[in-house]
Amino acid sequence: MKKINGVAAAAGIAISKVYELETPDLSYEKTKATDPEHEINRLDNALHASIEELEKIKEHTRNTIGEDHAEIFSAHLLILNDPELIDPMKEKIKEESFIAEAALEEVSTSFINLFENMDNEYMRERAADIRDVTQRVLAHLLEVQFPDPALIDEEVIVIANDLTPSDTAQLNREFVKGFATDIGGRTSHSAIMARSLEIPAVVGTSVITETVQAGDIVIVDGLEGNVIINPDEATLSEYREKQAKYEQQKQEWAKLKNEKTYSADGVQVELAANIGTPDDIEGVLNNGGEAVGLYRTEFLYMGKSSLPSEEEQYEAYKSVLEQMDGKAVVVRTLDIGGDKELSYLDLPKEMNPFLGFRAIRFCLENEDVFRPQLRALLRASVHGNLKIMFPMIATLEEFRAAKALLLEEKESLKNEGIAVSDDIEVGIMVEIPSTAVLARQFAKEVDFFSIGTNDLIQYTMAADRMNEQVSYLYQPYHPAILNLVNNVIEAAHSEGKWVGMCGEMAGDPIAIPILLGLGLDEFSMSATSILPARTQIKNLSKEEMASYKEQLLNMGTDEEVVEFIKEKTNM
Amino acid sequence: MKKINGVAAAAGIAISKVYELETPDLSYEKTKATDPEHEINRLDNALHASIEELEKIKEHTRNTIGEDHAEIFSAHLLILNDPELIDPMKEKIKEESFIAEAALEEVSTSFINLFENMDNEYMRERAADIRDVTQRVLAHLLEVQFPDPALIDEEVIVIANDLTPSDTAQLNREFVKGFATDIGGRTSHSAIMARSLEIPAVVGTSVITETVQAGDIVIVDGLEGNVIINPDEATLSEYREKQAKYEQQKQEWAKLKNEKTYSADGVQVELAANIGTPDDIEGVLNNGGEAVGLYRTEFLYMGKSSLPSEEEQYEAYKSVLEQMDGKAVVVRTLDIGGDKELSYLDLPKEMNPFLGFRAIRFCLENEDVFRPQLRALLRASVHGNLKIMFPMIATLEEFRAAKALLLEEKESLKNEGIAVSDDIEVGIMVEIPSTAVLARQFAKEVDFFSIGTNDLIQYTMAADRMNEQVSYLYQPYHPAILNLVNNVIEAAHSEGKWVGMCGEMAGDPIAIPILLGLGLDEFSMSATSILPARTQIKNLSKEEMASYKEQLLNMGTDEEVVEFIKEKTNM
Repeated sequence: MKKINGVAAAAGIAISKVYELETPDLSYEKTKATDPEHEINRLDNALHASIEELEKIKEHTRNTIGEDHAEIFSAHLLILNDPELIDPMKEKIKEESFIAEAALEEVSTSFINLFENMDNEYMRERAADIRDVTQRVLAHLLEVQFPDPALIDEEVIVIANDLTPSDTAQLNREFVKGFATDIGGRTSHSAIMARSLEIPAVVGTSVITETVQAGDIVIVDGLEGNVIINPDEATLSEYREKQAKYEQQKQEWAKLKNEKTYSADGVQVELAANIGTPDDIEGVLNNGGEAVGLYRTEFLYMGKSSLPSEEEQYEAYKSVLEQMDGKAVVVRTLDIGGDKELSYLDLPKEMNPFLGFRAIRFCLENEDVFRPQLRALLRASVHGNLKIMFPMIATLEEFRAAKALLLEEKESLKNEGIAVSDDIEVGIMVEIPSTAVLARQFAKEVDFFSIGTNDLIQYTMAADRMNEQVSYLYQPYHPAILNLVNNVIEAAHSEGKWVGMCGEMAGDPIAIPILLGLGLDEFSMSATSILPARTQIKNLSKEEMASYKEQLLNMGTDEEVVEFIKEKTNM
Repeated sequence: MKKINGVAAAAGIAISKVYELETPDLSYEKTKATDPEHEINRLDNALHASIEELEKIKEHTRNTIGEDHAEIFSAHLLILNDPELIDPMKEKIKEESFIAEAALEEVSTSFINLFENMDNEYMRERAADIRDVTQRVLAHLLEVQFPDPALIDEEVIVIANDLTPSDTAQLNREFVKGFATDIGGRTSHSAIMARSLEIPAVVGTSVITETVQAGDIVIVDGLEGNVIINPDEATLSEYREKQAKYEQQKQEWAKLKNEKTYSADGVQVELAANIGTPDDIEGVLNNGGEAVGLYRTEFLYMGKSSLPSEEEQYEAYKSVLEQMDGKAVVVRTLDIGGDKELSYLDLPKEMNPFLGFRAIRFCLENEDVFRPQLRALLRASVHGNLKIMFPMIATLEEFRAAKALLLEEKESLKNEGIAVSDDIEVGIMVEIPSTAVLARQFAKEVDFFSIGTNDLIQYTMAADRMNEQVSYLYQPYHPAILNLVNNVIEAAHSEGKWVGMCGEMAGDPIAIPILLGLGLDEFSMSATSILPARTQIKNLSKEEMASYKEQLLNMGTDEEVVEFIKEKTNM
């Protein structure tokens, strides 16, 4: 038995055998082919098996995350059916006595080199596609299993160095009971996806892939952030009990699904969810979400070869608004750049991308990208309760410029005779320190604020939250952060505006009592955090929490804050 | 005549012919040698000429910026005298009929490749040294001039894409009347060096190197940030007049050299200088500096192959303290990382170095680097009025940890019987938003603050000041910055502590009236800005400026602030 510590990324306990999501050893001996006919048959069989496999993955992806994301696999299938690629492989076998593996690699590599050296991002992506496909075919030739999350068909816990967004999206919740990774933190993509899929997960263990072996049984404790490898009987039954207790608690939570959110002393707040695609709404409603507090529109732009059309965007926004049936939906306009790249836009490489040309900075300079999104949003506005939010606002001029473009597009839609709602609130993300400091001036012009704590914390502490050497400075409870949050809330309320929070902090049990006391109006979080948060708030007195405000704002360190809150709320 | 706009980097007007600091064309035809003896002679002559040239540069560097920086040229000289490198070149000529150029390149390249592929930063730097030296010898073989700022011996204006620190350090002020570059901004290294050397300079012109030609006459207008190429007679005489007027103004300023700094209504402030090496003190005293407000100790660590010894550091600190003769000297402990790398320390490559493992974060994790600096400072403290300042403090814990190490070293020095001053003030840079927000809590524990605006602005606005696409967000007068500066000053004064500012903003004519009104105690700037600042403050009423405080803090944009100040101070 061995216990490994990591970061609790998604709540729950999972117990199962491991499934290692690692690229297998694909090396082979480069001999001469003795029977070319046989080699050609082997190649054909491997190609055929790969095509069948990709069809299956594509189908699964289409059903689970949608047509857009399935496109990548269509591209892979096209490659496997391309005679310009396949014929030369067979020539190599026939005329130069290559074995199938070598013929495959030789021809693929020449295409990969050709495409990679083109000064064209699109062709470079095709090179990456060929490389992926080649690995899959090679695996079939060598008869080693090419791991694929979509192919898992028995109960397992996935172990990987990291999970890419498409890996995570392909995880089948019926079989994948939990996962654990070497890298990542609470706000990394894999962690956010785990909470959205409601799969218990521990990330950032550093050593999990090198520690587990095939056949091991592991416990993923997504409550405490531990992974136990090959537990003994006592541990196993302890965790089975913990698991049952957690399931029971979930049932308690579920009773609050259709209720509003009130504190113990009767003050109402709103619990909303952060989403990435229209398919997330089902989870929001199942978890008792009262609104969508953050709809990240980046997914519409990612994993594609060109910008989404206005029509495509309109359909997505409309779908979310209709599903939410009159409940508020806060849509954040495109936040690209920083760590989020789009191959087809050819964004500049930057020395400090987090301090670079991203989000509203990019959109204001690229109206051909920004205006279609604004038009799609305006057109969708008649299908529900839409609120529009601009990200990365650092100055009043930026907000004014973005709003002016929105009003221009509204005007031109009206001139075209297209219906647009007249009740769209327009707000901003508060995620840059300057805007938090200057909230009083902003509050006069915006309809609402949503505090984006993930970025606000990293800029306020000048510490990249992805950089492990300084991640100790990512301190949500640091009194400087609390002072900024308080400044934003006071500024908004003095102008009669509302304030939400859509960073990870909004669903954090230590932060919730503080934020309630500071007067936050809307808490937007992973859908699965909503019911626990509602339960917690039901038991908190807002008046009591508000009475600690001055004390908290005058503390010196985040440690003092945590101790104080734990004591006052009996944690 | 042509006019090019850039950034005014150092004040003054220079008029002279251009000297282009560019690597010349070093290509040649690879023929067979017909007379190997002759080729060996040519190689020997080129080696000899290079050695003479390097001796000259080394001597010049030693005299102008000190022994440390001359070391790099000793390394170059060693290479040229190394038979392991030279003998194989002669073999190539004799046995394979190589011409001298080809023999030189062939052998050098093999060594460069060998060293570059070693997993050792030190050897990779040696590869870079060999490349430099090879270029110099090649230039002699081809009889083209290898440009070298130290070799300039007539009056010129240097034109370059950019100037490295060692380029700038070698500029001889007797002959180099000004410079203009394609890249860089007001806070880039070349700009800071230009102000420190008092050479008129315009940086960031984008096009200067491609626009000027050998033989052109140019005017560098470091007051307005313009470069005029081949001016006509009228323009020439206009600028000669402007130049004379500026020289006259400098003489007016010089009269204030030995005065203290008082506002028109008799309030005293201190004007200090930012320095990089002990040699800068002469300029500080010549420009009427009342103190050293920022001694950047990084230069002691740069351009070397290993850490400076405690003794070396002690000598440098002692020299600065003694030259300042009882006037305050604020020494900032090592601020390495971010954009400042040290090859021998093997710092990690980071995705966002400005938000990374730098300055105090690095020092607290590397006590073997930090403790010798603290000991050197403590030992030097008996030679003057030393104040110690820690950079990049984001939390109280960091300050407490750094101070604890300082007290430990003080204790152990005392136990060793070594004298240490008991009056050393210990303060921090305020350059991270969290610390500016939480200044009240810090003010209880530190002896002083020094606001580092260059970083504070870039973190507060979440905009990399080196990234041209977002440099419009580097706004020193943004009301959020003014609110943070005000918060720091109020917090310090309520605890009876003093506040300085050592960013570029402290010497800026628009910022000076604002900062005077907010109650800043010490302004630390480039030495050459001190007398103009003293003149400006002499004509400002602090009471009047303080009366605008609430208005300024409640403004919405930096533009409003600039307009307001220009109007109120008749600029």
